[in-house]
Amino acid sequence: MPEVLRGAGVSPGVGAGPVRSIAGAVPEPPAGDRHGGDAGAERDTALAALEAVAADLEERGERAAAAGNTDGRDVLGAQALMARDPGLADGVRARVGEGVPAARAVFEAFGVYREMLAGAGEYLAARVTDLDDVRDRAVARLLGLPMPGVPESDEPFVLVARDLAPADTAVLDPARVVAFVTEEGGPTSHTAIIARTMGVPAVVALPGATSLADGTRVLVDGAAGTVRVDPSEEDVRAAREGAAARASLLAEFTGPGATADGRAIPLLANIGGPKDLEAAVANGAEGVGLYRTEFLFLDRATPPSGAEQEEAYRKVLEAFPAGRVVVRTLDAGADKPLAFLPAPGEEPNPALGERGLRMSLRHPDVLSAQLAALARAAAGLTVKLQVMAPMVTDAGEAAWFARQCRDAGVEHPGVMVEVPAAALRARDLAREVEFFSIGTNDLTQYACAADRQLGGLARLQDPWQPAVLDLVAPAAGAGVPCGVCGEAAGDPALACVLVGLGVTSLSMSAPSLPLVRAALARHTLEQCRQAAEAARGSRTAEQAREEARAHLPGLPDLGL
Amino acid sequence: MPEVLRGAGVSPGVGAGPVRSIAGAVPEPPAGDRHGGDAGAERDTALAALEAVAADLEERGERAAAAGNTDGRDVLGAQALMARDPGLADGVRARVGEGVPAARAVFEAFGVYREMLAGAGEYLAARVTDLDDVRDRAVARLLGLPMPGVPESDEPFVLVARDLAPADTAVLDPARVVAFVTEEGGPTSHTAIIARTMGVPAVVALPGATSLADGTRVLVDGAAGTVRVDPSEEDVRAAREGAAARASLLAEFTGPGATADGRAIPLLANIGGPKDLEAAVANGAEGVGLYRTEFLFLDRATPPSGAEQEEAYRKVLEAFPAGRVVVRTLDAGADKPLAFLPAPGEEPNPALGERGLRMSLRHPDVLSAQLAALARAAAGLTVKLQVMAPMVTDAGEAAWFARQCRDAGVEHPGVMVEVPAAALRARDLAREVEFFSIGTNDLTQYACAADRQLGGLARLQDPWQPAVLDLVAPAAGAGVPCGVCGEAAGDPALACVLVGLGVTSLSMSAPSLPLVRAALARHTLEQCRQAAEAARGSRTAEQAREEARAHLPGLPDLGL
Repeated sequence: MPEVLRGAGVSPGVGAGPVRSIAGAVPEPPAGDRHGGDAGAERDTALAALEAVAADLEERGERAAAAGNTDGRDVLGAQALMARDPGLADGVRARVGEGVPAARAVFEAFGVYREMLAGAGEYLAARVTDLDDVRDRAVARLLGLPMPGVPESDEPFVLVARDLAPADTAVLDPARVVAFVTEEGGPTSHTAIIARTMGVPAVVALPGATSLADGTRVLVDGAAGTVRVDPSEEDVRAAREGAAARASLLAEFTGPGATADGRAIPLLANIGGPKDLEAAVANGAEGVGLYRTEFLFLDRATPPSGAEQEEAYRKVLEAFPAGRVVVRTLDAGADKPLAFLPAPGEEPNPALGERGLRMSLRHPDVLSAQLAALARAAAGLTVKLQVMAPMVTDAGEAAWFARQCRDAGVEHPGVMVEVPAAALRARDLAREVEFFSIGTNDLTQYACAADRQLGGLARLQDPWQPAVLDLVAPAAGAGVPCGVCGEAAGDPALACVLVGLGVTSLSMSAPSLPLVRAALARHTLEQCRQAAEAARGSRTAEQAREEARAHLPGLPDLGL
Repeated sequence: MPEVLRGAGVSPGVGAGPVRSIAGAVPEPPAGDRHGGDAGAERDTALAALEAVAADLEERGERAAAAGNTDGRDVLGAQALMARDPGLADGVRARVGEGVPAARAVFEAFGVYREMLAGAGEYLAARVTDLDDVRDRAVARLLGLPMPGVPESDEPFVLVARDLAPADTAVLDPARVVAFVTEEGGPTSHTAIIARTMGVPAVVALPGATSLADGTRVLVDGAAGTVRVDPSEEDVRAAREGAAARASLLAEFTGPGATADGRAIPLLANIGGPKDLEAAVANGAEGVGLYRTEFLFLDRATPPSGAEQEEAYRKVLEAFPAGRVVVRTLDAGADKPLAFLPAPGEEPNPALGERGLRMSLRHPDVLSAQLAALARAAAGLTVKLQVMAPMVTDAGEAAWFARQCRDAGVEHPGVMVEVPAAALRARDLAREVEFFSIGTNDLTQYACAADRQLGGLARLQDPWQPAVLDLVAPAAGAGVPCGVCGEAAGDPALACVLVGLGVTSLSMSAPSLPLVRAALARHTLEQCRQAAEAARGSRTAEQAREEARAHLPGLPDLGL
């Protein structure tokens, strides 16, 4: 009988194919071996491997950039530089000259740099990982081992990993990856977000995922959170039919978002730039609830000109003549520094550092140029432009931002509610701005003091945590329209709970829109309120999820 | 007329003396210069400077370790290793051989390593600062410039800096430093905590502090938050008399902590080990409210034995036969990793990582051994032993910890409330444990998403933030005794507000005990409640402080 493994489904859909794992550790080449004797040839082999690794990284970087992932390009480009470091080449030459074989020479030469970092003791720099990756690639090439990182494949496959990092997913071809399965990760992990954005089914937090042998055929159900090993043709067909039936059922729900009794809840899309508009429109978005503007600012020596910004903003604004577009102003910080916005110094915890509005307070000129470009872009258009600041903590900051907006001709200022203090004092902030948008990912991260990037803390990064709902409630009840633009908004059951707490609009990755539209259409506002009350009366995230679902009888019919 | 500068007083007392600044930036030696021609002598000079820097760092590291600061020793030791790196020496030799002068050769040789780090792009590793410090020390030595870092001085002085880092204060001689003045920092900054622990007056967040010329005489009033430039003899005498009068006034308040109308509020001390007992007893502590146990675990390859732990715990327990001792279990994490407790990996934000109880969940054996040693240490003693876990997030974790305690024979389990979620769901947690202790420093850090280590965010690290008081209130009202052991407990006005919110005991650095004892004795519980209500009704930290003081008329009489 086929085995079924259970994890957390974080991106719905069905995918079947052979497992391809991100390769395991590259072993250390043994010390003490000597090469044959032709030092010149051995040296050329070693240096050629380094150059091949550099070229490969660079090429992957270019592919990432072409796919719009400039972060990925930066990381890969820095790694290519490491592989081409002249000091490193000198170290390899010297060791090969002493008789050390190529792979060991490369390993040891990297060791000098590695020690520099590792010798720094308690702060083991994040860069050690990147450095080790370059070393492992060169050693793997010299020893004829599989290359670490995302496998290359010509046929569609299920990507299996402990967890996926941005560098892994930067170069993924969506046409080749039919599903993600990871051993770690949670609903707001990088894997989950990427999977939803790509529309690829994903199951995370699956114990034993990395023990699945390469080539094993599996059937992944991202809605149920299951992975079936060695499925029969019949299993695959049934799962595909089920998914298709669900999709056609969902397709019956069209039009603006609303509860069964007619309370309008505009359903909006989270986008990273004009390239995401097509999916948003195709999934019936009534506008944009979160327009991340970082893509315009990353990876350049000077800020984009006002004209350049205006053009990028106008493309998005023109897509929704009868809707709204909520733009988030530049969210930069020490974790994603910009060349022209020097961070005030290194930060031991960038997530708790000078990011978002805090950076704008330090560089108000960049903010005012962005606001002016937004005002010009919206001039003469019928769309409602709303502009919000990230990482706002108190009423003073909200008031300052609103003043900057109005001075620049932006009429509808708002703030992200993602810092617990902002949620707790929502009534104070509501006196300063016109609307809120709750960022549940960061709000959960701070409320539970649990880094979103750490798979080991997935249990605490759950927006179903009753404490998080306790923070949503005051923000949603503060007297101004309050949307949610975190991943929570795309969870059909949680979306109903959020509406029950008083949230007035929901913004999510485009592929989640049909699910949420159907879930809302099946329940009344009163059912949503009862679900919310039951969730807040729970003691754990698991219990909250279960209690809420008991008040949302329409979900199982939808296969949710 | 003498000039008076105003900042934030964070450690009371009066100190007068000449300014000694932490030296400013060491300039880059110009490129293109050539040395005289004796490459051998120039090379020896350069290498001798590096060795002298290494030896100095090592010696400072040993002094830090002797003063109990093993963290400081580790940082300084790693820097000494950098200065002695053979690859670095090779780089210096090669450049001097090409005619580059010693200082420039050193600067450039460091550059190779620096580029490696800086080339890593967006993640600029924290170690760049340490590396630059080593380079600057070597360059300063070669150019005859003042050494960066804490000045050496044989006479007492006022230490002035932009901000003080742990590495700066690791080697301070309390007999030489009469006051601290910094341009940045806030009430929970490292400078403020160190100053209060050392009993040295301190003013932080003083604009223009670093413009004070070395040698300028200043009079620092750590209660008023003022720095008087070029004070007259009369000014100094009057300030000292005022401080003495205040001290003698405070000395009139003795005995257990209580409000004017007799509500007992036990006043306890925060200690880091048996060495801090003397100051606690001398200041009338009724017990220990926070016994940090990390000192037993740091800087060793294996955990301390049960017998070793038992002995250290018993010393503290025996000091308060009629009182209580609240022990915090091991609070380790990626920011202070232990050799025998490997962190699960590198963490981009250690403050949001696997620290405290989260680490204990991964290594329950270390926790159970500590709990067993505590139970044995308390056997047969009359003191009340209470044991609490750090970084508890939800009721499930609290229940798990209580079970571990009871299994080990520890009768009174409790939890730290320092994660916002724990404060919000305090009623759930109160069903699992016997008491709470609020860590206001971390609670403020997470509630405002503002790293305690960043001077630039001092405004948001203020425990007077109304949002923080909104989190104290549910914890203090959850039905179990609730202490406060963060820095907020040592602020006399805030201590009254905390009592007004329902807090039942206060624990602080020993030198703050007399101030808080006097402040409570001067006010009724009802006055404290009114002050608390006024503070929570405010919109900013500044306003909360002001409104609360208006309800605490006894503070000005006490010079507070």
